[in-house]
Amino acid sequence: MLHFGKIAIIGAGNVAYTLCKVLKNKGITPFCVFVRNELSAEKMRQKLKVDVVSDYEKVLKSDFLIIAVNDDSIPEVATHLVDYKGLVVHTSGTKSSRLLNSVERYGVFYPLQTISKEREISFDEIPLLIHANSDEDLAKLRAFAEILSSKVFECDDEQRKTIHLAAVFISNFTNVMLGIGDKLLKDNGLSLEIMHPLMKEMIEKSFEISPENALTGPARRGDMATVRAHENMLENYPKEQEIYRILTNYILEKYQKNEKL
Amino acid sequence: MLHFGKIAIIGAGNVAYTLCKVLKNKGITPFCVFVRNELSAEKMRQKLKVDVVSDYEKVLKSDFLIIAVNDDSIPEVATHLVDYKGLVVHTSGTKSSRLLNSVERYGVFYPLQTISKEREISFDEIPLLIHANSDEDLAKLRAFAEILSSKVFECDDEQRKTIHLAAVFISNFTNVMLGIGDKLLKDNGLSLEIMHPLMKEMIEKSFEISPENALTGPARRGDMATVRAHENMLENYPKEQEIYRILTNYILEKYQKNEKL
Repeated sequence: MLHFGKIAIIGAGNVAYTLCKVLKNKGITPFCVFVRNELSAEKMRQKLKVDVVSDYEKVLKSDFLIIAVNDDSIPEVATHLVDYKGLVVHTSGTKSSRLLNSVERYGVFYPLQTISKEREISFDEIPLLIHANSDEDLAKLRAFAEILSSKVFECDDEQRKTIHLAAVFISNFTNVMLGIGDKLLKDNGLSLEIMHPLMKEMIEKSFEISPENALTGPARRGDMATVRAHENMLENYPKEQEIYRILTNYILEKYQKNEKL
Repeated sequence: MLHFGKIAIIGAGNVAYTLCKVLKNKGITPFCVFVRNELSAEKMRQKLKVDVVSDYEKVLKSDFLIIAVNDDSIPEVATHLVDYKGLVVHTSGTKSSRLLNSVERYGVFYPLQTISKEREISFDEIPLLIHANSDEDLAKLRAFAEILSSKVFECDDEQRKTIHLAAVFISNFTNVMLGIGDKLLKDNGLSLEIMHPLMKEMIEKSFEISPENALTGPARRGDMATVRAHENMLENYPKEQEIYRILTNYILEKYQKNEKL
């Protein structure tokens, strides 16, 4: 047993499941996993070979507890932990660490990644954002996180919230752009796969020379003839046309082109 | 000399420059490069060690001519080519191949990639979209394109226009999302680099299981409390707030959540 002691996990969603798997891959078997729903509990038991429980008795005997449930369920979970003596953390990108302040020792362990059960991912390269209400527990949390990833960052609630908001633009909304591209291509008998090299190069270039310097395309060079042609092509896609207009205007304004849509 | 003969290129921009470089790397030195601006001509001469000319005399003696100029300049270039006997192509994503139909043999050679002079890129994995007005020239164009890339696709003007429009969403607008994330992070003393693993995984996942199946995040799971919190955080960023609202609504509607912003 490592010096942070017996680890319990609460939850059966993407994060709880993946975290449990990643820990087992590192040779650390959780002390127990709390899952309320019996069907989910049985699945987790079979797939991950861990001790899955549905009452808090064993959970309260752990030394380190990771709450990986929906943001909105964290307060309810906290009500069961008033007597907990270990260190408890949640995994939310947006919720305050103080949601857990009915427990003496609390903090946050937030993996900055898009996590789906079906995807086999390693935590090695995932930024882990940690926070604790005492220096001692912060050191313990860091030691734990560093077993899983080489990218561990201490950050407070406000910084984490900003990072989560930025992640919505960078991950979720970028996904929406891919989805719109996919739809336009499919409707014309074409496949998204053709876009893979373009997407990869744009990302690499943006991270290397900054998104601002990496931008190309009609709006960037103020090519209004192409912009108008695109708008016309989107006539049967009113929502996508609106998104096209707003983002094109955003680029035009940013790069101080005078002509507006 | 390969069976498509002497290659000439017109232009000094990102595409002309990079194409010239890529050809040289494959052991093919262009017959000549036409550059109108003397300063650009001199730069290209020095950097790429090619014969850069500023009148059409030598250009007209080539067998295969690639016009890599701004979309709007293609018609003007075409006026100089009425007597051209070789095969002429342009490299535009949106313009009709028929812009060149004053020449007997014409077509399109469109590299689907975001190209900047400063970036060292190989064409090996770049989709090259080709089109020609005769089967014979199409075969020649394919033979040429296949020297540069393993991904050569014949596609007509309409398909290419759709692909270009999709590319604006997938490359340019995704870049905008990265730019907004970058700005939010910077304004709070944080660095974009922390987002790299998230971005990479989201892209890989989207291409593997489709963008639709890969989407996670507050809007996707209908977590309106987080959406409202994000909106509030964007109060001092009115344009970014508008983009947040529109894209969140797009996700909510798509995944049939009833609550609107």
